[in-house]
Amino acid sequence: MPHGYNGKLLRIDLSSGKIIKEEIPGRLYRKYLGGSGLGGYYLTKEFAHFPEPFSPENPLIFIAGLLCGLPVPTGGKSCVVSRSPLTGIWGEATVGGHWGARLKSSGHDGIIVTGESDEPVFLSVSPAGCEILPAGDLWGKDTFETSEILTERIGKKAQVACIGPAGENLVRYASIMIGGDDARALGRCGMGAVMGKKKLKAIVVSGDIKMTLADPEKLKAAVREDTVLIREAAKGLTAFGTSGAVEAVEAAGDLPIQNWRGGEWKEGAKLVNGKVVVEKYLHKHYACYGCPIVCAKKAVVPYGPYKGKTGHSPEYETIAAFGGLTLNEDIEGAIVANDLCNRLGLDTISTGAVIAFAMEAYENGLITEEDAGRTLNWGDPGVLVDLPHLIAYREKIGDVLAEGVRCAAEKLGGNAEEFAIHAKGLEFPYHDPRAFHSMAVNYATANRGACHLEGLTYFVENGAFPAELIKYEITSDRFGVDGKADLCIKMQNFMNVLNAAGLCKFIIRGKAGPEKVCNWINLALGWDMDYDEIMKIGDRLHNLKRMYNVKLGIGRKDDRLPSRLATWARPGGGADGQLPHVGKMLWEYYKLRKWNEQGIPEPEKLEELELSEALI
Amino acid sequence: MPHGYNGKLLRIDLSSGKIIKEEIPGRLYRKYLGGSGLGGYYLTKEFAHFPEPFSPENPLIFIAGLLCGLPVPTGGKSCVVSRSPLTGIWGEATVGGHWGARLKSSGHDGIIVTGESDEPVFLSVSPAGCEILPAGDLWGKDTFETSEILTERIGKKAQVACIGPAGENLVRYASIMIGGDDARALGRCGMGAVMGKKKLKAIVVSGDIKMTLADPEKLKAAVREDTVLIREAAKGLTAFGTSGAVEAVEAAGDLPIQNWRGGEWKEGAKLVNGKVVVEKYLHKHYACYGCPIVCAKKAVVPYGPYKGKTGHSPEYETIAAFGGLTLNEDIEGAIVANDLCNRLGLDTISTGAVIAFAMEAYENGLITEEDAGRTLNWGDPGVLVDLPHLIAYREKIGDVLAEGVRCAAEKLGGNAEEFAIHAKGLEFPYHDPRAFHSMAVNYATANRGACHLEGLTYFVENGAFPAELIKYEITSDRFGVDGKADLCIKMQNFMNVLNAAGLCKFIIRGKAGPEKVCNWINLALGWDMDYDEIMKIGDRLHNLKRMYNVKLGIGRKDDRLPSRLATWARPGGGADGQLPHVGKMLWEYYKLRKWNEQGIPEPEKLEELELSEALI
Repeated sequence: MPHGYNGKLLRIDLSSGKIIKEEIPGRLYRKYLGGSGLGGYYLTKEFAHFPEPFSPENPLIFIAGLLCGLPVPTGGKSCVVSRSPLTGIWGEATVGGHWGARLKSSGHDGIIVTGESDEPVFLSVSPAGCEILPAGDLWGKDTFETSEILTERIGKKAQVACIGPAGENLVRYASIMIGGDDARALGRCGMGAVMGKKKLKAIVVSGDIKMTLADPEKLKAAVREDTVLIREAAKGLTAFGTSGAVEAVEAAGDLPIQNWRGGEWKEGAKLVNGKVVVEKYLHKHYACYGCPIVCAKKAVVPYGPYKGKTGHSPEYETIAAFGGLTLNEDIEGAIVANDLCNRLGLDTISTGAVIAFAMEAYENGLITEEDAGRTLNWGDPGVLVDLPHLIAYREKIGDVLAEGVRCAAEKLGGNAEEFAIHAKGLEFPYHDPRAFHSMAVNYATANRGACHLEGLTYFVENGAFPAELIKYEITSDRFGVDGKADLCIKMQNFMNVLNAAGLCKFIIRGKAGPEKVCNWINLALGWDMDYDEIMKIGDRLHNLKRMYNVKLGIGRKDDRLPSRLATWARPGGGADGQLPHVGKMLWEYYKLRKWNEQGIPEPEKLEELELSEALI
Repeated sequence: MPHGYNGKLLRIDLSSGKIIKEEIPGRLYRKYLGGSGLGGYYLTKEFAHFPEPFSPENPLIFIAGLLCGLPVPTGGKSCVVSRSPLTGIWGEATVGGHWGARLKSSGHDGIIVTGESDEPVFLSVSPAGCEILPAGDLWGKDTFETSEILTERIGKKAQVACIGPAGENLVRYASIMIGGDDARALGRCGMGAVMGKKKLKAIVVSGDIKMTLADPEKLKAAVREDTVLIREAAKGLTAFGTSGAVEAVEAAGDLPIQNWRGGEWKEGAKLVNGKVVVEKYLHKHYACYGCPIVCAKKAVVPYGPYKGKTGHSPEYETIAAFGGLTLNEDIEGAIVANDLCNRLGLDTISTGAVIAFAMEAYENGLITEEDAGRTLNWGDPGVLVDLPHLIAYREKIGDVLAEGVRCAAEKLGGNAEEFAIHAKGLEFPYHDPRAFHSMAVNYATANRGACHLEGLTYFVENGAFPAELIKYEITSDRFGVDGKADLCIKMQNFMNVLNAAGLCKFIIRGKAGPEKVCNWINLALGWDMDYDEIMKIGDRLHNLKRMYNVKLGIGRKDDRLPSRLATWARPGGGADGQLPHVGKMLWEYYKLRKWNEQGIPEPEKLEELELSEALI
């Protein structure tokens, strides 16, 4: 391990109770960085027999990003990878907060959990090692309660990652939640359900091990300078959080309306957005580890069983789901629904998509009032507030909806597949590929399915992130085809870098590109990483994950949008009449990626990326 | 029935042996014409509980076209409709030859066969009625032998429709063959397998009932005049048959190469085409009933067990399959394979697609030499000659391939779906949607799946059929988007008319449009049909079939091309780099069709088309 702190991996088998601590070879860091890069290496190399997502053999791999816990801007990201029970393929989720940094301070970089416990347990990870402790008393408790109890038990500076009832009940899009009512989420791909299946309620990390830096003074100076720039460029995020942009997004025709059928929702966007939350319900602003942007907001819950308590304020993705997607114009309903999802341990992106799907199924007579125990009308905030409970506890129609839209559509039959909006089984996040055509090729090819983090090309196209920082030249407007595949690939590669490096995607809002990331890495670790090397790592990681999927049968046939996004033009608004030419962009994408006619990376490409060790 | 001959329907239940003869209400003719229009009415109205394709309740409905057997150009077409065992949805197949006209002369327009016999039987239909007769001695015989024996038994002027071993063995793309070694095929959708499941080996029709005409003299004069025009315009077909165009099709980038992966095959197209057959292997030219074009050719079989015998010469679709698609440059192999398919009762379009699929599966290691009992190399004519037998008898890998590419891909697993080229389960015919983009929207929306008869838009775009005859204005080249949906709809509607009217699609090569068809109908039947009425009938029939499919769960999600045709641009040749913008064309298509966001015809549209009686 080239940098000074312990590069240590814990291997915990919950079936046998066996715990092993081992070194992570230093060369792996330089090749895969950390986070989902290093996690991808372990998943692909050691679990190439692809155990079923809910089998005890399927590992749940927590790994901190390379720079996580170091004093660099947004250096607080860690992630979890596993075979997803929602999609059956590559699964990953990323989180900020303080858990990853604390994991590092406990003297560990990663934890691979396999096996399955008979009784509920939690892990306590500290510099002394790891203990498997009983959690029978915690089973059934929500994530806020669980976190509070465990922090109390282990110590104030301990950080808790835990599941709620949704994970316990194997909801296929259950999240793993971090930090109690700070409520940062390892949201996507149902990682909470994998944890629930293992009867693992929580992982508590504690410790104060300091990490040494290669050139602390120069790093400090660079970070000081960069922080000013980042703060300045990202001040909209600081003021109103991610959901401050809802109105602008709507105006661009980029906000999904009524399960992606609508075109405009101007009045709604005025009522349901982050600015309104900050104005009326703000409790406080707060930041993830090391973050100068401070985009997180805490809100006071306006009604319901947790009225008056504080919780995480809905992010953009959440408010889009509990706003335009479901036609809900009641901001309070959105805040309450978000808070419930966080407590129950439900991914709000998938939950929102599932609720919109349920509303459309209800409209089509495929779900009845009896099935749901209530009406499921568009725009009714009561639906948003009631359904998370049914889903998390698999009650009534919630038992079907807990499977995600792809599987629920199969179970409901009829025409349900028409409005099950997903790619590769993962529900879509909330930027419309009809508004930024480059997002079409990104959604179609992102490794975990319809992913909001692997592409982010719209930040380049709307001018938030300077194209030249990834050596891209803008040659067509946001509705064009020209150059989009190139843009998509460059952004996918760079986003893979950010994830593995443990940095937040929002540094691109702060106009920090690959060069800046290299600089931080080099000053922190004493490396000599440059643009080409780091972007090649991004390329390597994207292809590594692709190969994991390829081995599970994924190919060109799966790289597609649902028909609603490919054949139903937005009716009105900022993307009126738009439909991306997905086929053409994909064709260019495959060529540039050097993927063959089946969408499989060519052997020479894999060789160039030195991936043979991971793919044997 | 407004015109003078017997509008009679036979209903035959093979389980009970019950036979009923009933009138077909005259008003149904004016509304649905005949053929698959009238057949669609019966299938949709009386079998709306959708019995499984192989259930005894699934009807096999033979119906002659409206003008079939009347003295109009190409008036010899009849068809069969049923729920397809290949696709699970709307199934239809159309045939020329002389069987339909003879059915009319037997005093019947249609036969609805339900039930299932315990022992093999055949039907003898004559003016005296219908007899169910034992066919145990015929079971296992090929279609040429069967036809010969039954013609001998019933009389020289009898016409035989029968199945071969493929139909008996429930190959899901088994054909029903007409006219012995004339070998006209009710080819697509596996209608022969439905017949085989019912243990119905053949239907023999005989009789000499004359049909009266409303205005025989005027009709005669009109037909005489039209015949000259049609002959002149279609003389390429007369000289070399449908496969005379292979070289021109290849030059346009319209000929599929190596299971749709390739772009050019110039040298191959010189060797494997209809001109070569006519020059070297021609036995004779011959015509279907009433046809002035005489496109059919008979060839001498060059080798194999039937060497020296005569059989039908391969049509364009067949020679494309046994040529470019499989990279076979040996014309003799194509002739032999075609002849074997005809004898065994296999649809050559699907069989060719299945063989190309098998070659690619072999290349990918999903089929081994042991599975197939031989190598399956691209371009090897031995494969084309050997596989039809394995398929028809379900031997070795043939048992899997007999299910069609969609199902075979599922069974083979791995990446097989990538090269299973079908739409809605029906293997693609052989005009490339990348060469004529309008064909993309046609293939995606044609009711029986990837259909070579429901669209034919390329005839408009290459100038063979004048656009103004269907009131279409050409506004973009063959690679454009503009106007394609409109063109597709107009041609789909008109093709539905031709099918139901009992006319051959090739009258459009003879520049005969809807007005001419109206004229023939009016002079023959004494009607006053005009352009608007007949095109509305086409619209009605397309929507009727769509609704049949909608009730089986078909919608927008199913209206798509396989990823190879949507995302793999042709590499080189006349359509180099081309990919159609399927989404945009579909969007316009649905709008023009008045189909909703799920691809379902709007209630007002169905009302406008007066379809409620059929769709209750």
